[in-house]
Formats: sequence, C-alpha cells, structure tokens
Amino acid sequence: MKPIGITMGDSSGVGPEILLMAADAGELSEPFVVYGDLAVLEHCRAHIHSRLPLQACARPAAWRPGCVNVIDSGLLKASDVTPGKLNAQSGAAARAYVVAAAQAALRGEISAMVTLPMNKEATQRSDPAFTGHTELIGDVCGVEDVTIMLASKQLIVTHVSTHCSLREAIERCRTPRVFRILELTVEALERIQPGARIAVAGLNPHAGEHGLFGREEIEEIQPAIEMARQRGWQVEGPFPPDTVFYMAVRKRKFDAVVCMYHDQGHIPSKLLDFEGGVNIALGLPIVRTSVDHGTAFDIAWRGEASTTSFSEAFRFAVRLATHS
Amino acid sequence: MKPIGITMGDSSGVGPEILLMAADAGELSEPFVVYGDLAVLEHCRAHIHSRLPLQACARPAAWRPGCVNVIDSGLLKASDVTPGKLNAQSGAAARAYVVAAAQAALRGEISAMVTLPMNKEATQRSDPAFTGHTELIGDVCGVEDVTIMLASKQLIVTHVSTHCSLREAIERCRTPRVFRILELTVEALERIQPGARIAVAGLNPHAGEHGLFGREEIEEIQPAIEMARQRGWQVEGPFPPDTVFYMAVRKRKFDAVVCMYHDQGHIPSKLLDFEGGVNIALGLPIVRTSVDHGTAFDIAWRGEASTTSFSEAFRFAVRLATHS
Repeated sequence: MKPIGITMGDSSGVGPEILLMAADAGELSEPFVVYGDLAVLEHCRAHIHSRLPLQACARPAAWRPGCVNVIDSGLLKASDVTPGKLNAQSGAAARAYVVAAAQAALRGEISAMVTLPMNKEATQRSDPAFTGHTELIGDVCGVEDVTIMLASKQLIVTHVSTHCSLREAIERCRTPRVFRILELTVEALERIQPGARIAVAGLNPHAGEHGLFGREEIEEIQPAIEMARQRGWQVEGPFPPDTVFYMAVRKRKFDAVVCMYHDQGHIPSKLLDFEGGVNIALGLPIVRTSVDHGTAFDIAWRGEASTTSFSEAFRFAVRLATHS
Repeated sequence: MKPIGITMGDSSGVGPEILLMAADAGELSEPFVVYGDLAVLEHCRAHIHSRLPLQACARPAAWRPGCVNVIDSGLLKASDVTPGKLNAQSGAAARAYVVAAAQAALRGEISAMVTLPMNKEATQRSDPAFTGHTELIGDVCGVEDVTIMLASKQLIVTHVSTHCSLREAIERCRTPRVFRILELTVEALERIQPGARIAVAGLNPHAGEHGLFGREEIEEIQPAIEMARQRGWQVEGPFPPDTVFYMAVRKRKFDAVVCMYHDQGHIPSKLLDFEGGVNIALGLPIVRTSVDHGTAFDIAWRGEASTTSFSEAFRFAVRLATHS
C-alpha cells in the first residue's frame, strides 16, 4: 500500500501537535507522509518536548522509515506561527496542504488522505470563496456531490445534507439524492463494516405520522428506500427520528443511520462521543477521512489536545484504502 | 392540596396496569383519583394479580384513603377490553377521561392531572379531528399556545414547536414565539428547579455560522434571547445544536435547553433516557404532566410495562402543583 497522506492543518491550531503526539505514541500503524511545513513541525516538536525525528521528503514514494516524512510546502517559517491566533498566512498554507494532498491522492501517490483541522475564517482571509474542507477537496476532485459519514464509537451516521440551512436541507430531501446517499452509505459500509444494518431516519417528527406532519417520508424517502431494497441492500425505514438512534445505539438493532440533515445525525453522535468521532468523505474518487473537531485555538500548542479522533481517522483511512 | 387526577389512558394499552402497578408499589406518594373505568381496572387488577382495593368515587373531594379512588366514566365494561388491539370504543373512552379530568382541574377540584397514554388512531375513529393529547387538553382549557417540556434524568428540554412538519417548524421559529417559549420555560423551571441555567439551541447547523447557513439565529432567535436577558433571566445562546446537548449533559454547563423543533430536543432526550422521560405541558392554566411513551400494544396487559415514566410524571405534577 502507498503511504497515507496527512495534512498538518492550520498551524495556529492543534493539528501539528496532534500529529506529532500520535506519531510519538505509535498510534499511526502504517507508513505516512505529512503535507505541511517542516519548519512549523520542528518548532512544534521543541514546544511539546518531542524527540521524534523529522525529515523533508520530496515525494510520497521517497518516504523513509524511522522518522516523520514531511512533504514540505515551504510556505511558513517558525516565526510565522501564532499559536491560538487567527492567522491569514496559516489559513492559506493549510489550504495549500489540502490541495497538494488531494492532487497526490488523485495521482495515486498516496493511498488515502487524513486531514487535521483548518480554520474557516483564517482560510477565508485569502480565499473568500472557501466554504469548507470537504467542499475544497470536492473541488480539487471535480466532484460536487460529496457527503460526510460520521463514525463514532457507538454510531455511524450519514447525511442527505450537511452544511446548509435547515430550510435548504428540506429542499435537498428528494428521492434521487436520498437514494444516492443510501448508495454511498452502503458502499462505504461494505468496506468498513460488511453486513452492517442500515436504518433511514424520517425528516419530520414521528416520520411524518402518515403524512400528518409532512409528506417527505411518503413522497421522497420511502421511494428511495424501495429502490435500495430492490438492489438487495439491507435498508429499513423511514423511522421516527427520535426513536431510530435509541434503536441503533441502545437496542443495537442497526449499525448505521442515514440522516436527512446535519443536526439529526450530529446531535446524537456528538452527545455519545464528542472527542472520538471521525469524518469520512463519501462520493470522492479518493479516500479521505478527517478528525471531527476544529482547530481548538483555546488549547493550541500546549500538548493538551486529544489524539483520539485523529488516530481513529487514520485507522479508518487505512481500512478504507485497504478495501478500495 | 387537592388530589392529583390521573387519566387511565386507552384500555387496550399499558395505562391501566401501569397505574395499578405504581399504586401497588407505593410510588404515588400523594392522594389521587383516577379518571377511567372501574370495570376495566377491576379486570386489569385480576389480570396482573394485584390485590389493590378499588372503589368508585363520585367526585375528587370524596376520595378515601387506603384504596384507589376511581371517578368511573361507566363507558367500558370488562368485556369491552381488547388488550393490545386497536379499539374505537376504548379510544373514545380515553378521550372522555381526559376531558373530564381537564374540566375538573379547571374547576380546581384536582390540583393537577397526570395522563397515561391514549392511542391516536383509536381516538380518531370516533373523533377524526383529534390531533393529540396535549392539543385536546389545550382545547378544553381554551388555550392554543401549548408546548411540551420534556424532562428526563439528565436533560430538560422545551420546544418552540412540536407536532408539525419540519417545514412548518421553521415558519414557527419567530421572535415572539421563541420569547414566549423562553418565558414558559423560565416559569416552569422556577417551580421545578430554581436557579436552572438555560441554553437556547440554534435552528440551523452551527447555529447558522454567522448567517452562512440560515439567518433565523440572527433575525429571530438572538432578539428573543436579548429580550429575555433584559428581564433578568439566565438564558444563553443560540448555540450550535450539535454542541449544546454535549455542553448541557456531559459538561453540566446547562440544566435545560430550549429547542427550535421537536426532534432537536427529542433525539437527545430519548437517546439518554428512553423510558423515564416525562412530558410537562407549558402554557396551560392547569398543571398537566404525562408519561413520555405510548400505549405499547405489543406488551399490554402482561404486567411487563415500566412504571418509571409514570411515577416521575406523578412526582413532577406534585412538585408543580405545590409551587403553583
């Protein structure tokens, strides 16, 4: 397997230290290369008293064992780093690492990419059109219809829509899109957890209560589920949203829930496992996983950040890359 | 204090046995009268091998200690009972108990009402316009703007809207209504849990992310919160919906969360405490609490139902009636 590509994230945030701490602790079990700035990582290493050997590496295939191999962007010097502070230069550099890694993944030089957090506001200083990490990678890959699978310890969720208003989320709840998300969910689960049982949540309270509280279940969701079942996929629903997570998590009747909007899946996932969740992008031609937390400026460069989500994201990337 | 009025619920469901089991177990610590059918309760008592003495009671003030006092509707005979089966006659009777209890509460004959589950479909057989338990009580009280507080072990939530489509829920998210729900929440918490810290959830993902994913937070919710703070109420927000429950439940930063729609509050509540939740109606001129589960036809009349939610509902009714 080609090495996994890791993007260092915004240098003002917790990305660099999480990378070094996880590598130090031996949590990254497969070869990897880092898309980032060597000068920043060296600075961070001293800051958190790590002795991990670092080295510049011209291209992924040139990685060498026994050290952290960095595809050095050369964009930031140690003196550019402002821990915990919004920094336009850092935001632009974080964007560049992601573009470089996504391009390398498209060329097949890395087997997957795992991303550490960017800061949206910092990146928007140099790229006002930047709307999100996943959207940027979608752009590089020339794909529009990207969605996120959120995998936490007790629950896997996917979403028919994510970063849009609730009003827009209702508009996006249409049979072709629901079916496409079911398809992406099934494909991903075949690689992550074969035989997974999938539940589909309704959009409205009580899943619409036979049309009394909305007709999307009858007109949009049910037809998509029927199409999926005709393909032989093990998909059930639509279930009342306030019951389906209980059935999945407490009664262990389902392994994954397809959600109709961002918070439907994020509320239960973050309540169950705030720190350990992993984002898995679905619909891309490359494998990409991500931590499910932000830059955490309030604790950056103190060595206090948790590596749990990152290590899990790395583990999922390896699993997905192995079965792709 | 006047006795608490308990409605028996649909005779095909778990209501009658939950009432008898809770009374048998000494879980009902204050005087109460039951609005229901004596013949059904006698039949149920034999069925679950209870020896609890039952007696008909003409009016709440005539209750006597040492037995279960039943304000007998005389609508159902033992032979009318069809455990676990939808029954139009049962549905109509369950409706009648609720109307009788609400009227008694309005007249001040009982200090509060605690309701056991009705079956919507069964009741609609005789009353097609029936939309829900709470709405029916609102009608009897001549009040339209009723909402539900859902109190579970770890979390108290209220809702700006409940039983309507998600599309309609967005329309109902308007400053006056959000403020009114904040007001009702503050009033109820003063009686249930003085000094409670209240968080307000946003409507959109990331609470709209500064208007990027919807403007309701800026235009509708924030102004309501400011009005509430001007009254001196301890209210914070709007917070990202996927973070606020984690902050309340895991970080213990808030005691209650004001939610913008049904599932926003019901998903985390039911995930945390599926069986023990209690519904408290807000906005009524009477005190009314309810179990947070349905008729559970699948286990009815087997003596297997949990009394937890009902006993909690009774306890909350006593607390609210004491401080009203």
